[in-house]
Amino acid sequence: MSQINPFYSRLVSGYLFPEIGRRTREFISNNPDRTIFRMGIGDTTRPLAPSVVTAMTAAVQELGVLKTYSGYGDSEGTNPLRVAISNYYQELGCEITTNEIFVSDGAKSDSANIQSIFATDNIIGFQDPAYPVYVDSNVIAGRSQGLGENAQYKDFVYLECNAENGFIPQVPTQKVDILYLCFPNNPTGAVATRAQLQAFVDWANANQSIIIYDAAYSWFITDPELPRSIYEIEGAKKCAIEIQSFSKFAGFTGVRLGWSVVPQDLVCSDSQAGELNKIWTRRQNTMFNGASNIAQAGGVAALSEIGRRECQETIDYYMQNAKLIKTSLEALGLDCFGGDNAPYIWVKTPNGLKSWEFFDKLIQEAGVVGTPGSGFGPSGEGYFRFSAFANRESVELALESIRGNLKI
Amino acid sequence: MSQINPFYSRLVSGYLFPEIGRRTREFISNNPDRTIFRMGIGDTTRPLAPSVVTAMTAAVQELGVLKTYSGYGDSEGTNPLRVAISNYYQELGCEITTNEIFVSDGAKSDSANIQSIFATDNIIGFQDPAYPVYVDSNVIAGRSQGLGENAQYKDFVYLECNAENGFIPQVPTQKVDILYLCFPNNPTGAVATRAQLQAFVDWANANQSIIIYDAAYSWFITDPELPRSIYEIEGAKKCAIEIQSFSKFAGFTGVRLGWSVVPQDLVCSDSQAGELNKIWTRRQNTMFNGASNIAQAGGVAALSEIGRRECQETIDYYMQNAKLIKTSLEALGLDCFGGDNAPYIWVKTPNGLKSWEFFDKLIQEAGVVGTPGSGFGPSGEGYFRFSAFANRESVELALESIRGNLKI
Repeated sequence: MSQINPFYSRLVSGYLFPEIGRRTREFISNNPDRTIFRMGIGDTTRPLAPSVVTAMTAAVQELGVLKTYSGYGDSEGTNPLRVAISNYYQELGCEITTNEIFVSDGAKSDSANIQSIFATDNIIGFQDPAYPVYVDSNVIAGRSQGLGENAQYKDFVYLECNAENGFIPQVPTQKVDILYLCFPNNPTGAVATRAQLQAFVDWANANQSIIIYDAAYSWFITDPELPRSIYEIEGAKKCAIEIQSFSKFAGFTGVRLGWSVVPQDLVCSDSQAGELNKIWTRRQNTMFNGASNIAQAGGVAALSEIGRRECQETIDYYMQNAKLIKTSLEALGLDCFGGDNAPYIWVKTPNGLKSWEFFDKLIQEAGVVGTPGSGFGPSGEGYFRFSAFANRESVELALESIRGNLKI
Repeated sequence: MSQINPFYSRLVSGYLFPEIGRRTREFISNNPDRTIFRMGIGDTTRPLAPSVVTAMTAAVQELGVLKTYSGYGDSEGTNPLRVAISNYYQELGCEITTNEIFVSDGAKSDSANIQSIFATDNIIGFQDPAYPVYVDSNVIAGRSQGLGENAQYKDFVYLECNAENGFIPQVPTQKVDILYLCFPNNPTGAVATRAQLQAFVDWANANQSIIIYDAAYSWFITDPELPRSIYEIEGAKKCAIEIQSFSKFAGFTGVRLGWSVVPQDLVCSDSQAGELNKIWTRRQNTMFNGASNIAQAGGVAALSEIGRRECQETIDYYMQNAKLIKTSLEALGLDCFGGDNAPYIWVKTPNGLKSWEFFDKLIQEAGVVGTPGSGFGPSGEGYFRFSAFANRESVELALESIRGNLKI
């Protein structure tokens, strides 16, 4: 008499991006002659850096030769990659040792799995809007009784991000045991200052709460004053896990590589220093067998001096897209946020349209696919996310089509 | 007041293979002059097939060029790979459609994650001994109250596999909702016949139980009468999930690629046909972002006609190792099982030694590292696993060292 996990039925709808894909395919099949411009899912479009291609080609070749073939690696990642990541933190002035670094197949897996090392009755908080994975993984784990009022899941704490607070919420005033933070933020593009992050770290340490810090977009920060890692903030190693990714930094969305940091100093209310690091080690040893060794070789190359320079060129390219999108949409009278230190432009929908209404209007009138803000949470309603991950020509054509066809 | 997941403390000890690694490193550091022969962890040692190297090299090159670059793929896998897998099943006479196939980063992840789509109070059963991941992932999920008597976790049903039943247990007589089966078996090397598997499938359908069938070693079956997939058995699509791997078949232990099959017909006691397939889709969409696109290109090549032929040569090579190991150990008077349709030789320890005692004796006297049977469960106590995944020269030297130095 097997039974299914009942918590899946508490999830409201399909995962956001498959739903966008479904509506887009439907539009295309009804309008086979129309050109479609994709500015929706945050998917990279520029080729990999030459040094990364060279390193991964060599890695593949080595696997084809007896003397250099290798099989299972440590599930926490290869030593050269963990050293390169540790060095990256050193550049930022953070002391992160290799045994605090866990290489993974990407930030999505880590974002979804990290909740599993905490007790089920811990209270979860996040910025609203937020990357859906934080929310959905906790619903699946049974931490919510299901959807409640205002399109919010029960038992979760939503920290509203809006134009008034610059999309950076205040620290929670309710009880929150595990708080997800993402800066530069997906979807709003907002970035917390050092002072703002310090307030969160101080709050967490005062309340024995844990911060899950998603820094996947740190590579897009142009302002040197803004923190790129939570470990730049004093006291963060006691309360914060950081999740990072090669997806947007090095174009590894399809190659799959990321990492998490669980510091030795990190503590829960009921644990000693080192214990959470040990439990995450056990989780990864038991349920994961390491990222692809080819991807890891690519990761080492991406973090090398030449790799960093090459990847930076691509990041600059995307950020020029961001500037172009923001300027053009503002010229049409739309209220735009983000886009300066993040690859996302967060736009207030015109005329009070709901997010999915604007999605339908934008694809029908201009042939442009974007991401409805409400897909990221109730406070995203009435907003829309444009992504700068595209080729320039496509961005220019999309903006031209919006200018010419969108009836605002 | 964050708290850790309390279920981790119910796990008895570290994951088996890190523990072997720890003891091995300790021995090496105490005996720096001794030569070590590794016949422990089932890690492949032979280079990748040339056609796979060619395909993955091309995949890397394509990622370096704007026109052929690709980012996120479907989390369920690329279409060409799912078609190739579907065709593989067709060869076996099984109709498995692409929407029933979920490509992953390996059988370990799938083996660990699959339990999460079932209710927490489902009763879990497995063969004893078994791959530790089945057991540990369910302890972590809270399905056991902790270790009980006879080194067995409470609340789990252990189906004893021993020399008397040829290491193939009878169907459960107690209530079991989710049953893990692995054939060819890791660690015993036993393979169920069609009639034996049919009995399990009939039991599952009669009891609305689910079978998680780990077929990762099916590639080593030499006897054409033995089933390679559970879907060769009538009624299996209603009750069985199959987990498969490129690790041992194509040497992808480090490259990372596998798949699971969740048939549309599969039902729990409280679900309709299609529902489990949909829930697993939702799980993978939410918590995973697809296997590396480079690995997937390699997988397509491995499943091609030439790839299959090349991979078969390597499998034959390992199976010759298996024969050599089995024959040599039998010549020393040891009782050996498996090794004919599986890459593992399961050996009764001499003189009633406990498994870890034999581990220490074998490394100290002969410098050979194997795997203690008790690491796979209480019924593995008094047994020892030798792996055929090694280069011939190393196997021969290890066997020579055993012959010359092991005091039986």
